[in-house]
Amino acid sequence: MAGTRDVRLEERPDPTILAPGDVIVRVVAACVCGSDLWGYRDFGGGRPRLMGHEMVGVIEQIGDAVATLSVGDFVIAPFSLSDGTCQSCRAGSTSVCDHGAFFGTRDEDRHPIDGAQGELIRMPLGESSLVVVPGPVDDALVPHLLALSDVASTGHHAAVSARVGPGDVVVVVGDGAVGLSAVLAASRLGAKRIIAMSRHADRQAVAREFGATDIIEERGEDAIAALRKLLDGDLADAALECVGTAEAMEQTIGSVRGGGRVGFVGVPGDRIDLDINRLFRGNITIGGGMAPARTYIPELLAAVLDGSMQPGKVFDLELPLAEVAEAYAAMDERRAIKVLLRP
Amino acid sequence: MAGTRDVRLEERPDPTILAPGDVIVRVVAACVCGSDLWGYRDFGGGRPRLMGHEMVGVIEQIGDAVATLSVGDFVIAPFSLSDGTCQSCRAGSTSVCDHGAFFGTRDEDRHPIDGAQGELIRMPLGESSLVVVPGPVDDALVPHLLALSDVASTGHHAAVSARVGPGDVVVVVGDGAVGLSAVLAASRLGAKRIIAMSRHADRQAVAREFGATDIIEERGEDAIAALRKLLDGDLADAALECVGTAEAMEQTIGSVRGGGRVGFVGVPGDRIDLDINRLFRGNITIGGGMAPARTYIPELLAAVLDGSMQPGKVFDLELPLAEVAEAYAAMDERRAIKVLLRP
Repeated sequence: MAGTRDVRLEERPDPTILAPGDVIVRVVAACVCGSDLWGYRDFGGGRPRLMGHEMVGVIEQIGDAVATLSVGDFVIAPFSLSDGTCQSCRAGSTSVCDHGAFFGTRDEDRHPIDGAQGELIRMPLGESSLVVVPGPVDDALVPHLLALSDVASTGHHAAVSARVGPGDVVVVVGDGAVGLSAVLAASRLGAKRIIAMSRHADRQAVAREFGATDIIEERGEDAIAALRKLLDGDLADAALECVGTAEAMEQTIGSVRGGGRVGFVGVPGDRIDLDINRLFRGNITIGGGMAPARTYIPELLAAVLDGSMQPGKVFDLELPLAEVAEAYAAMDERRAIKVLLRP
Repeated sequence: MAGTRDVRLEERPDPTILAPGDVIVRVVAACVCGSDLWGYRDFGGGRPRLMGHEMVGVIEQIGDAVATLSVGDFVIAPFSLSDGTCQSCRAGSTSVCDHGAFFGTRDEDRHPIDGAQGELIRMPLGESSLVVVPGPVDDALVPHLLALSDVASTGHHAAVSARVGPGDVVVVVGDGAVGLSAVLAASRLGAKRIIAMSRHADRQAVAREFGATDIIEERGEDAIAALRKLLDGDLADAALECVGTAEAMEQTIGSVRGGGRVGFVGVPGDRIDLDINRLFRGNITIGGGMAPARTYIPELLAAVLDGSMQPGKVFDLELPLAEVAEAYAAMDERRAIKVLLRP
């Protein structure tokens, strides 16, 4: 990404093993994230950026220290790389690893890490980050496996952070791929009623398929009023913020009853301040942030492999990597929910 | 309370039953709350206020609709009155009851409710709010029962909101009666290490008695550095904010590891804004507010009655109600942690 609405496919040298823990993965599928659109819509200056942080692929090469992964393994890459040994990782919070790294940035040795929207990626912290998919992988499974890299794990994190459980009434704010994945997660965790806030017919259809029982098209105060009407004067037990704007956060907090829980996973697009007094008065719990995908993937992978979960339905457009610019444009213009890219 | 540092004992007419759900309680013991000191130190204008929201007593009279309470019952009054039937109450969040009321204010029919620092109180919502202590009550139990009215329940809420559980390393910020009660709650919920932040020898002693394993006397950034040193570079799994200032909140959030949990119960003395990006980056969950004491009291009462918990140790001074002004002064000047008042 070289500027606002300027994404280009360019040749880069093939990565090589730089440290004994490195793993080189040939990308089978990658995709564009809703959070990639923040920079796409307003680049904000600086050098061109390597894009993409979601991918599945096949291991092509491993460093000498890699013991549990083999060349040929089909792997899912969580969107954040983690060492698995620091205090946060030991507690399961791999997304805030003390020595973690992200695609498109640099590792602790200052070596660059490629973006996942590419062909070949050197992965530092490979062994502690990558999750192997056992057995031969049917091509039809690829979208569902790719979704675990970020969007399905992130939706799951919203629901887990809001402690969604059996019998809960849950509101989901945001009908992008993350919001839809949050609907799926809430459904999987036993919510009895899931209200998706969406005004796009295509997204509403996926939300319904993922377990939404009701749709609210209004926004802001009108959405809260519609919610109260729907619930006979009540509000939700939990609400999930899957956008990343102050307006969405306001609507999310306004959707829960006294003592309710808010999960938030929308990457904040600007500064959002929370008035502690408001949480205090409402006895509201709020939690979230970047999903510890590495921690969640094994559980969610089992659900994908046994067919109980099909998170890849958020991909409604598939393009060759060569058309990556069109992938961004399609998502920016809401012609697609989420675009899968094949190198 | 008629002004800054101006608390007076004055005669008021005895309350009478005004609604069929009313209960009149003769106060056996009441006390001064740390939150009463906000107004004591800066009254801020307006009419004189009826003070006190913590008490235990004996039922003297009941309205016609009261079926499950009897004259002569020894009862604990939660600091907030609740109807037990609204959505929040049904979910256990009695402190944010849709039709709740507070001591020293007015009920939904606009009838005044006395402050608990008095002799006789009319309690609307009596049946759904008061908790009966079974059998004859030994006078030595009174401080422990009175503590359940607010401070022990509030400390418990801090720990529950931060999901403190077995094996956790927990920091408690604030060494007032609530902070000490939070230490007790964390200990009861199985925390393996509890670090109390306190610089007063008398409070440190109670903290140790309540289960604190370590004491940190530093404040702010120095406190965080001392914590990291104590934990060999790590931070706490959970931290409990029991003060209600921006500085204390900052210190509390700074005390937890990535993915850590913050419970906050200090009544905010001023506006405190939380940067959502900070929670996002740290994957931090924050929850709290006014404790649903009515929900917690039965569980905590059982622990008091079986002797496993002695929350009344936070009372280090007992005065007759006539000396209520001195009770406020002693707490304001930190000559006492918490003062018990006997009418």
